[in-house]
Amino acid sequence: MGKTDCPPMPSSRELYETYKTTFQEIADIKYASAVLQWDQETYLPPKGSDARGRQIASLNELAHKLFTKESTGNILYELMGRDDLGSREKRNVELSLEDFEKNKKLPSSFVRKMSEAVNKSFHAWIKARKENSFTLFQEPLDELVNLKIQEADLLGYSGHPYDALMNDYDKGLTVEFTDNLFNQLIPPLSELLEKIRQKPQVDNSFLFQHFDKDTQWKYGIELLKQLHYDFEAGRQDISEHPFTINFSSRDVRITTRIDERDFSNMTWSCIHECGHALYEQGLPYDEYGLPLGEYCSLSIHESQSRLWENAVGRSREFWIYQYPFLKEYFPQQFKDISGEQFYAGINKVQPSLIRTEADELTYHLHIYIRYNIEKQLIEKSICAKDLSEIWNNHYKQLLGVDVPDDKNGCLQDVHWSHGSFGYFATYSIGSLYAAQLFSAIKKSIPSVNQMMSTGSTSEVLQWLQQHIYPFGRYYNSSDLCRKATGDILDVNHFLGHASEKYKEIYKI
Amino acid sequence: MGKTDCPPMPSSRELYETYKTTFQEIADIKYASAVLQWDQETYLPPKGSDARGRQIASLNELAHKLFTKESTGNILYELMGRDDLGSREKRNVELSLEDFEKNKKLPSSFVRKMSEAVNKSFHAWIKARKENSFTLFQEPLDELVNLKIQEADLLGYSGHPYDALMNDYDKGLTVEFTDNLFNQLIPPLSELLEKIRQKPQVDNSFLFQHFDKDTQWKYGIELLKQLHYDFEAGRQDISEHPFTINFSSRDVRITTRIDERDFSNMTWSCIHECGHALYEQGLPYDEYGLPLGEYCSLSIHESQSRLWENAVGRSREFWIYQYPFLKEYFPQQFKDISGEQFYAGINKVQPSLIRTEADELTYHLHIYIRYNIEKQLIEKSICAKDLSEIWNNHYKQLLGVDVPDDKNGCLQDVHWSHGSFGYFATYSIGSLYAAQLFSAIKKSIPSVNQMMSTGSTSEVLQWLQQHIYPFGRYYNSSDLCRKATGDILDVNHFLGHASEKYKEIYKI
Repeated sequence: MGKTDCPPMPSSRELYETYKTTFQEIADIKYASAVLQWDQETYLPPKGSDARGRQIASLNELAHKLFTKESTGNILYELMGRDDLGSREKRNVELSLEDFEKNKKLPSSFVRKMSEAVNKSFHAWIKARKENSFTLFQEPLDELVNLKIQEADLLGYSGHPYDALMNDYDKGLTVEFTDNLFNQLIPPLSELLEKIRQKPQVDNSFLFQHFDKDTQWKYGIELLKQLHYDFEAGRQDISEHPFTINFSSRDVRITTRIDERDFSNMTWSCIHECGHALYEQGLPYDEYGLPLGEYCSLSIHESQSRLWENAVGRSREFWIYQYPFLKEYFPQQFKDISGEQFYAGINKVQPSLIRTEADELTYHLHIYIRYNIEKQLIEKSICAKDLSEIWNNHYKQLLGVDVPDDKNGCLQDVHWSHGSFGYFATYSIGSLYAAQLFSAIKKSIPSVNQMMSTGSTSEVLQWLQQHIYPFGRYYNSSDLCRKATGDILDVNHFLGHASEKYKEIYKI
Repeated sequence: MGKTDCPPMPSSRELYETYKTTFQEIADIKYASAVLQWDQETYLPPKGSDARGRQIASLNELAHKLFTKESTGNILYELMGRDDLGSREKRNVELSLEDFEKNKKLPSSFVRKMSEAVNKSFHAWIKARKENSFTLFQEPLDELVNLKIQEADLLGYSGHPYDALMNDYDKGLTVEFTDNLFNQLIPPLSELLEKIRQKPQVDNSFLFQHFDKDTQWKYGIELLKQLHYDFEAGRQDISEHPFTINFSSRDVRITTRIDERDFSNMTWSCIHECGHALYEQGLPYDEYGLPLGEYCSLSIHESQSRLWENAVGRSREFWIYQYPFLKEYFPQQFKDISGEQFYAGINKVQPSLIRTEADELTYHLHIYIRYNIEKQLIEKSICAKDLSEIWNNHYKQLLGVDVPDDKNGCLQDVHWSHGSFGYFATYSIGSLYAAQLFSAIKKSIPSVNQMMSTGSTSEVLQWLQQHIYPFGRYYNSSDLCRKATGDILDVNHFLGHASEKYKEIYKI
């Protein structure tokens, strides 16, 4: 046989293996960067932070370079033309191609500009918070908003430019969809809040006694074990802000913080992060580095944390079993507090200034304010200089609270300084999904509350292991919701849950 | 002006900046890999180890790829031709080029083969240790030795093939030089050992009482602070085997282990690692990622750990001040032990089976045995199948001990399974450098012992900060030694120290 100029065409099997190797190597770098970030938040000695900053930046740049290489695209385009892939393989390739094309839309000069602007605005935000003055953050924020508008243009959209940004956190999410949700959600919640306000407030002062740090830590670990967090595939550490981070589905770490004067601070953050972590630990390990090994969307991720934090962790049934154990850790503090008092206290509704400390109900109002401000910034109907005033007006109007200063107002969240526009809505949407998923669980396992009250949450976990975890990014949020619950997202699950719970607690 | 085909020649300044950026980015990846290794040894949950293995491998491969790129070489060759670089810049470029050319000598197919053989032999070693049978390790070791012989051929050498391998750990180190050192060192040490054996043994049983873990930990931290280890630029954690690792000279971490039945285990490992860490913390931060920001050689690195561990940490003067503090941590254990008894006990000479537990004197005999065996393996005058027998004969002859089994014999060290042939000699040579450096310190600061006995070791540190740390790899070991002490390496510093110390302790 004579020589030929072309190498033999690789089989789909060979090509898929090349794709897998390429993407898993990129994942290795991304996860390495995540390890460096975890270390930065937990154990990094102070003088190490400069070098750490450049190490993380180099890894991220490298991963981006490898991902957007022409050869990476070629493999994907070639594989898309093959018709002998399995359906999961096909879906991996489709999703990787989507990611590739999206990344390609952003020129590297633009990516660099954005990263510089983020760096600038983050430091301005730190300073502004320190000096409690939004003015210091205004100009870099303006610049960042302009870049985000450009980003939306580069990425493209058919409806609202903000759609293009929300898409980053939840594929397919639109302003139309989100406006519609909030329109159904906010009025009844405001109405319910008004009714609650007219009733005597419940007492939760027992949560704000002195709770020894070490005992809280031990209790947190015990709680995580009860919830089936796998300590062989993860660990808990202390950081300033609690978070979940993963370096594979077999190494999913969580952090917490402990406030000796506030028992709720650590406890529900533990349960919240545990919900995120159970999801990550349940993602298919054999899809390491590929889309089907990744979480569906931030909305679904948040649905998992909120499901455990609220539907389970603030339920009467969960604490029927758990409260006696808690009392063993803190016998003095809970000596005179009945189970019912405890249950009411941990569900106290109280409009407040700070999002992260908000209760299950008013939380949505906090998000709604941020969502509207972001949307308007991106559509240029407001600009950064008016933000502080707008913020304060919204808080007065919706939550009835006076914002004393910017630190307790529009400077409280890190998100804008990071350029994370489009993120906030997923917090509310996640909570709505959580309520709907828990409705489905109750329908599928009618005795689930009974089981919780006798100490078992494993039925809840098993349901999620069957209906949510194995799919990775196979479905988008909406499709996954429909597949798991039989219906598209419906605010009434949350409204029903809230109405039932608070009407009982507040005797409305 | 018309267009030209060639881009304008970059200035030396521009070219040096490109070189710096390139090498610092490669360093970012290497240090990231080091963070992942540190995490693996300290905090990694068990199920995370598979993914961690591939993440580290990917980073290492990537760093190697970037380093051996043709464009990397081109920058170096171009810079070598420039005559307007500063002397430190010139030296950085020279050393980077040496590294580049050395790496280029090993084809990537060979590197892969080696890494596979190492992987195989490491697992065989684990198994062989577990089953206490050298036979299981023999074949993979043979294969690895053959590859190391090939490596020596690829790298090239003028004297002994083993020179090429030792060069990896200490540039310029040769069999001729090392043989010569051992020939001067071993006979007088054996003679001294024989004299010690004829004398009544000192008692160190007080070191083997129960020492509470937490108190040991606190004492270790206190000791590190006393020695000026900078906790703002590092931290201590627990791992199975103590080590020092750095991610820049501002993040240099150490680990230790604690044995509640052996006080010496943690204490002198703390001091040893602290010596390594002080060196790394003292390397110039502005040379991050460049040769002048890196340690000189493994021999010099070991000289730093041994200087603090032995010359300082086993000296009478150091403990004159420290012992009363130690007694505050463990009042019961040291109640009836005088300072002199303590000093004699921590310097007990006792031939034994395990290198890492050996005293300052017999340690060299352990190293000498390994050095000879390695050298003979590489020159093919012995082969792996006879190794166990040869080992046991050497131990009987030099140390007078009977090796009961391979686990306590030729399977005790991890080095061979890692393919680290040429490493061991640097342990002895490091100790010899340590003694010579400490002689120079005493000459330069005659009151240094007096200072230690009143609680200050900062004069020792300052001397090292002046004579060793700032040079990075500017000089090789020999030149650095000559520059710092005025003389080439001379075994008599160690011999004089050992003879004086042990003759006094053992009343010879």
